[in-house]
Amino acid sequence: LLAAMKAKGCSVLVHGATGRGNDQMRFERYTNVLAPEMKVYAPWRDPDLLKLFPGRLEMVEFLRKAGIEAFPGGKKRYSTDANLAGLSHEAEDLESLETPAMIVTPTMGVWPADAPDIEEIFEVRFEKGRTVEVNGETLSPLDVMQMANQIGGRNGIGFKNALENRIIGTKSRGVYEAPGMELLSRCLECVYQATLDRRALALFKPLSSLVANQIYDGRYYDPVTTAAMAGINVFAHYASGRVKVGLYKGNVLFHSLTECPASLYNEADSSMEASNGLNPVSSQGFAEIQSVEARSLAFAGQIRW
Amino acid sequence: LLAAMKAKGCSVLVHGATGRGNDQMRFERYTNVLAPEMKVYAPWRDPDLLKLFPGRLEMVEFLRKAGIEAFPGGKKRYSTDANLAGLSHEAEDLESLETPAMIVTPTMGVWPADAPDIEEIFEVRFEKGRTVEVNGETLSPLDVMQMANQIGGRNGIGFKNALENRIIGTKSRGVYEAPGMELLSRCLECVYQATLDRRALALFKPLSSLVANQIYDGRYYDPVTTAAMAGINVFAHYASGRVKVGLYKGNVLFHSLTECPASLYNEADSSMEASNGLNPVSSQGFAEIQSVEARSLAFAGQIRW
Amino acid sequence: LLAAMKAKGCSVLVHGATGRGNDQMRFERYTNVLAPEMKVYAPWRDPDLLKLFPGRLEMVEFLRKAGIEAFPGGKKRYSTDANLAGLSHEAEDLESLETPAMIVTPTMGVWPADAPDIEEIFEVRFEKGRTVEVNGETLSPLDVMQMANQIGGRNGIGFKNALENRIIGTKSRGVYEAPGMELLSRCLECVYQATLDRRALALFKPLSSLVANQIYDGRYYDPVTTAAMAGINVFAHYASGRVKVGLYKGNVLFHSLTECPASLYNEADSSMEASNGLNPVSSQGFAEIQSVEARSLAFAGQIRW
Amino acid sequence: LLAAMKAKGCSVLVHGATGRGNDQMRFERYTNVLAPEMKVYAPWRDPDLLKLFPGRLEMVEFLRKAGIEAFPGGKKRYSTDANLAGLSHEAEDLESLETPAMIVTPTMGVWPADAPDIEEIFEVRFEKGRTVEVNGETLSPLDVMQMANQIGGRNGIGFKNALENRIIGTKSRGVYEAPGMELLSRCLECVYQATLDRRALALFKPLSSLVANQIYDGRYYDPVTTAAMAGINVFAHYASGRVKVGLYKGNVLFHSLTECPASLYNEADSSMEASNGLNPVSSQGFAEIQSVEARSLAFAGQIRW
Repeated sequence: LLAAMKAKGCSVLVHGATGRGNDQMRFERYTNVLAPEMKVYAPWRDPDLLKLFPGRLEMVEFLRKAGIEAFPGGKKRYSTDANLAGLSHEAEDLESLETPAMIVTPTMGVWPADAPDIEEIFEVRFEKGRTVEVNGETLSPLDVMQMANQIGGRNGIGFKNALENRIIGTKSRGVYEAPGMELLSRCLECVYQATLDRRALALFKPLSSLVANQIYDGRYYDPVTTAAMAGINVFAHYASGRVKVGLYKGNVLFHSLTECPASLYNEADSSMEASNGLNPVSSQGFAEIQSVEARSLAFAGQIRW
Repeated sequence: LLAAMKAKGCSVLVHGATGRGNDQMRFERYTNVLAPEMKVYAPWRDPDLLKLFPGRLEMVEFLRKAGIEAFPGGKKRYSTDANLAGLSHEAEDLESLETPAMIVTPTMGVWPADAPDIEEIFEVRFEKGRTVEVNGETLSPLDVMQMANQIGGRNGIGFKNALENRIIGTKSRGVYEAPGMELLSRCLECVYQATLDRRALALFKPLSSLVANQIYDGRYYDPVTTAAMAGINVFAHYASGRVKVGLYKGNVLFHSLTECPASLYNEADSSMEASNGLNPVSSQGFAEIQSVEARSLAFAGQIRW
Repeated sequence: LLAAMKAKGCSVLVHGATGRGNDQMRFERYTNVLAPEMKVYAPWRDPDLLKLFPGRLEMVEFLRKAGIEAFPGGKKRYSTDANLAGLSHEAEDLESLETPAMIVTPTMGVWPADAPDIEEIFEVRFEKGRTVEVNGETLSPLDVMQMANQIGGRNGIGFKNALENRIIGTKSRGVYEAPGMELLSRCLECVYQATLDRRALALFKPLSSLVANQIYDGRYYDPVTTAAMAGINVFAHYASGRVKVGLYKGNVLFHSLTECPASLYNEADSSMEASNGLNPVSSQGFAEIQSVEARSLAFAGQIRW
Repeated sequence: LLAAMKAKGCSVLVHGATGRGNDQMRFERYTNVLAPEMKVYAPWRDPDLLKLFPGRLEMVEFLRKAGIEAFPGGKKRYSTDANLAGLSHEAEDLESLETPAMIVTPTMGVWPADAPDIEEIFEVRFEKGRTVEVNGETLSPLDVMQMANQIGGRNGIGFKNALENRIIGTKSRGVYEAPGMELLSRCLECVYQATLDRRALALFKPLSSLVANQIYDGRYYDPVTTAAMAGINVFAHYASGRVKVGLYKGNVLFHSLTECPASLYNEADSSMEASNGLNPVSSQGFAEIQSVEARSLAFAGQIRW
C-alpha cells in the first residue's frame, strides 16, 4: 500500500480508524517505520472534525448535501473484522460481560453444538515448522489455511472469548474465531513437544509470546521481532513430523505423531542401543548430587513449612 | 509422613519408585529438604537388588519362598496414577506415539463423545483467587474440587495428551484427566483477564509457570517457590468475581463475568464520568509521541523488509 | 503532597516539568493513581502558553511587567537533579556524545583520580536485606545512606555514564552519581551470591529489574510492583551477613563475608558431616543421567557445528 | 580433539577432571553431543581408583614403582585456570570467605593500586558487534583480544570476586581476571545503549544471560544456544560504532561514541527536521491516554499505599 502511495506521490496516509482502538496505532506505526517521511492523518482524532460530526446522522446529512446518498446502517448486535487467519466480533451487545459469547453467529464455521456428532480424522505434515501437507495432499500455504479453516470450522474448533489489553491500555472484550490457526497450532504443538527439551521450551515460549505481542502492537518490522523470529526459526528447523488428530465438536484429540526425525522421545525400542539407555543405577548418583544442594538449603534454614 | 517417621525413630525413607521416573526425585528431594538428616534408600536404583530381581517373575518366586503369595498382575494397556487434582495414564501401549489417546478408559469422567448432547450451566464465585461457591452453594475447598471434578468430568472437560520433560531429562508420554482443575482454571482465567493489566499479566504468567515447574520438580518448599507464590498472591488478592460458563462435550463456553470489583474493564457506562473516559483527541498526541521513536528506528536504518 | 493538597481543597496539580522528560509522566501517573479525581495541568504542554513564552527572555519580560524581577540564569554546561539516593547530570554540553563524562564536577564525591591513593576499609552488616550497621555502628536507614554516600563518594565510587530509554521512548544521555547506592549494592550482592541458588537467582534478577523499571516509570504503587517486591522480600529474608570490602579510587574490593547463616556456600569444613558432602562417585551417575538427554539431542540430529 | 580421536580409532575419552567441578560435566557433555557413540571415563569418579589413590602421596608412590619420578607439588595458596578470555583463581586459601581477593597475584595485569596514576586513552571500533579496530589499528580477533588484555590488564581492569553456582549445584568461590573481555564489553555496551530501544534491550539481556549460562554449562552446541545467538545476531547487526574511553586504575570512563549510524539517540540537531521532533503538546495526549489506564487501576481499588 505504502509503495503504491509513494509511486503516486502521496505524502499523507489518511485512515478511518477510530481514536480508541488498535488499528489506528498499527496504521500509524507501519507508516512511521516504513515511510518515515510520510504523515498520517486520522480524522476521528481531529477535534474540528469530531465537532462537525458528533454522530452518524450528521454525516449522512452532510453527504446528502454533497449529493451522496448514504445510510447509517442498521443497528447490529456486534461488529466483525476478518482476515484469512481469523476474525473478531466486538462492540455493541458484546460490550456487556453479561452477554454470552454464543450470541455470535459464526462466520468461519459452527459452534460445537452444531458440529457433526462424529469424529473427523485430520492429518497434517510439517516440514521445518511449516504445514506442507493436509490429509495426504501437498498444498500451498494459502490452500493449507483455507482447508484448515474449512475443516476446523465445520467441527467447531477455534472459538475464544477474551478480554484483551489494547495498545493504548484499555481493555476490550471480543469473541474470536480462528479455526485453521487453532487446528494447525494444536497439531504443530505435538511436534514441538517431541523436539524441544526443557531449556528449548523455556526459550521458545517467551519468544513466541513476544512475536504475538509485537504483531498485535503493529511492530512486525521492529528489530526485536526479527530477533525473536530468528531464534524461533532455529527451533522450527527441527519441527518436522506427521500428526494425526480427531476433530469432534470443538475438541482436537491426539491420534499419532510419526515421521519426526528430530524427536527426543525414545520408546527405548530396539533402535536405541542398550548402552545409551537410561540405567536406573545412574539415577542414584544423580539423586545424590541433587541432594547436596537440597540439604544445603535445609541446613541454611531456607526451607520453611 | 516424615514427621510420623521421625516420631517413630526412623532414619531412612525407603520408597518403591523406579529409577526412571519423577517420583523418585520428588521423594528424595522432599526428604532432603524437610529432614536433611534422614537417608533415602531406593531399591530400584540398587545394583545388587536389580541383579536379584531383573523382573516380576523372580520377585513372585522370592515372595512365594518367603510364604507370601503374590500375583504379577495381568498385563494392562497402561498404568494410572491418581490424586484429587487429576490423574495420568502412562506406559505400556501408550508408549507408542501411534497409539491414540482414546484407548484410555476415563476414570474421572467421560470422553467428549460420551458426554450429554446438551449444555450444562456452571457458575462459580471466586474470592481473592479461591473458589468459594459453586452453583450457588458455598463450599469447602475439598467439596469444590470434588464437585468440579464431577461436573467437569461428566461433560468431557480436561483431557490432555502430552509429551513431558521429566526431571531427569527424558521425555515421557501421558494422557491426563483433570476435569475440575481445568474447569476452575478456565473460569478463574476470566477473572484474571479482567483484573490484570498488560504488565501484571507479563509477570503473572512466568510466575505461574515457575510454580508449576517447581511443583513438578518436587521443589514446593524451595524459597523460589515461596517467592513466586508471594508475587502471585498480590494478584490473587484482586481476583474476585462470579463466572458463568456453559459446558458442552469438552467445551467451556463463556456466559458472563459479574461481581468483579477490581475489574479494569469499563463498559464506558454511566457510572464512569465522561471526564475520565477516553478522548479520541488524546490518541493523536499518544500516536505522535510513539511516532518519534518509530521514526527514529527507521532513520537509524533498523527497519528491514 | 497529594494529601496536603486534598486537605486544602485543591483539585488540580500544576507542575513545571517539561513536555519531553520523565518527570511529567511520573507526576501525572502518581496523581492519577493516588488521587484519580484530581486533574493535572502541565503548562509546558499547553499550546497557548508555549506560544506566549517561546523562550526564557519572554518570561523574564512578562515577570518584570508583573513587578517581579527574574534572571534567566547563566548558561551552565549541564543541569543537575538530585536526591538522597543519587543525582543525574544531563542536557546542554552533555547532549553531545562527544563530550566526556568528566566535564562534570562531582557533587557527592570525587572522580577516582581525585580519591586518596590508599585503600579504605568499609564494613557493613545486613539484616534481612537491610543495612543495619556501618563500620561497627548501628545506624538508621537515613544515616546509613548518608554515611555510605560520604564514604563511597570520597573514594570515587558510583559514577555512571548512560544512554537511557525515557518513558516516552526517546533516548537521553546522563552522567550519574550514586556512591552510597553503588557501594551498598555491591556489598549486598556478596550476600545474595551466598544465599541464592541458581533458580532463586534466575527469579531474583528479573524481579529486581522489573522493580527498577517500575520506579523509573512512576509506577511504584502498581500491583505489579507490589507483586515483584513480595517475591524479592522472600529472598531478602535470608540476606543477612557482614561484608568487608576495600575502597580504592572507584574500586570495591572483596575482603570477607561472615555471619551469613543462610549461606549455601560450604567450605566442606568440619561442621559439615562427611555423609552430607559431595561424593565424586555420585557425579558419575549424575553425568550418566545427563548424557542420556545429551545423546538424544545428538541422535535426533539437533547438534550442528 | 574429538575429530582427532575418532581418526585414531579411539572410542573412550578419558579425562582427569575431578568429580566435584564443572569441567567433568563439560568434557562429558561435549563428547555426548559431538560423538554420542564414544564413551567417557573419569578416573576421579571411579570408586576403585579412588580407593587406590586416596591422596597424592599414594600416587607418587605408585608412579615411583612404575619407574616414574613425580613430585606432589608444593602447597600453593590457590590454583589457577587460564585461557585467552580470562582466568580463574580458586581453591585452597581462597576457599575461606575470610580470605581477601587481594591475596591473588594477578597474571594478566595488575591490581588497580599498582596501575599507573594516569588515565590511558583507549579507542575501539565495532562493526556489527565485532571489534575490528583498536587504537586506530585494524586487527584480527586474536590480536584484538591480546591487545585488550594487555591494555586492560596494565590498568587494573577486569577483576571480579564471585561465588558461583556450579553445574552440579554447589557453590564455589573464585577470583577472576578478564581484562580484555571486561574492557571490550564495557565499550560495546556504549554502542548497544545507543542502538537498542526498550523492547530490544528487554530481549537482548535475557538472551545474553542465556548464552553465558549455556557456555558455562557446556551446552554451546545445543539448539537453544544457537537460537539465542540467532536473536543476538540481529541486534549485533546494528552494533557499529567508535568508542573512546579513559582507563584509570580499574575504571573505564566514557569519552565519546561516534560513527554509530544505527543510533537511536538524537541530539535534536539540524539534521533532524523539526516536524519529526518531539512536540511537547503531543505529550499532553500521551499523558491523557496513559491516565485512563492509571485511573482505572485506582477506581478498581488496585492501588494500595
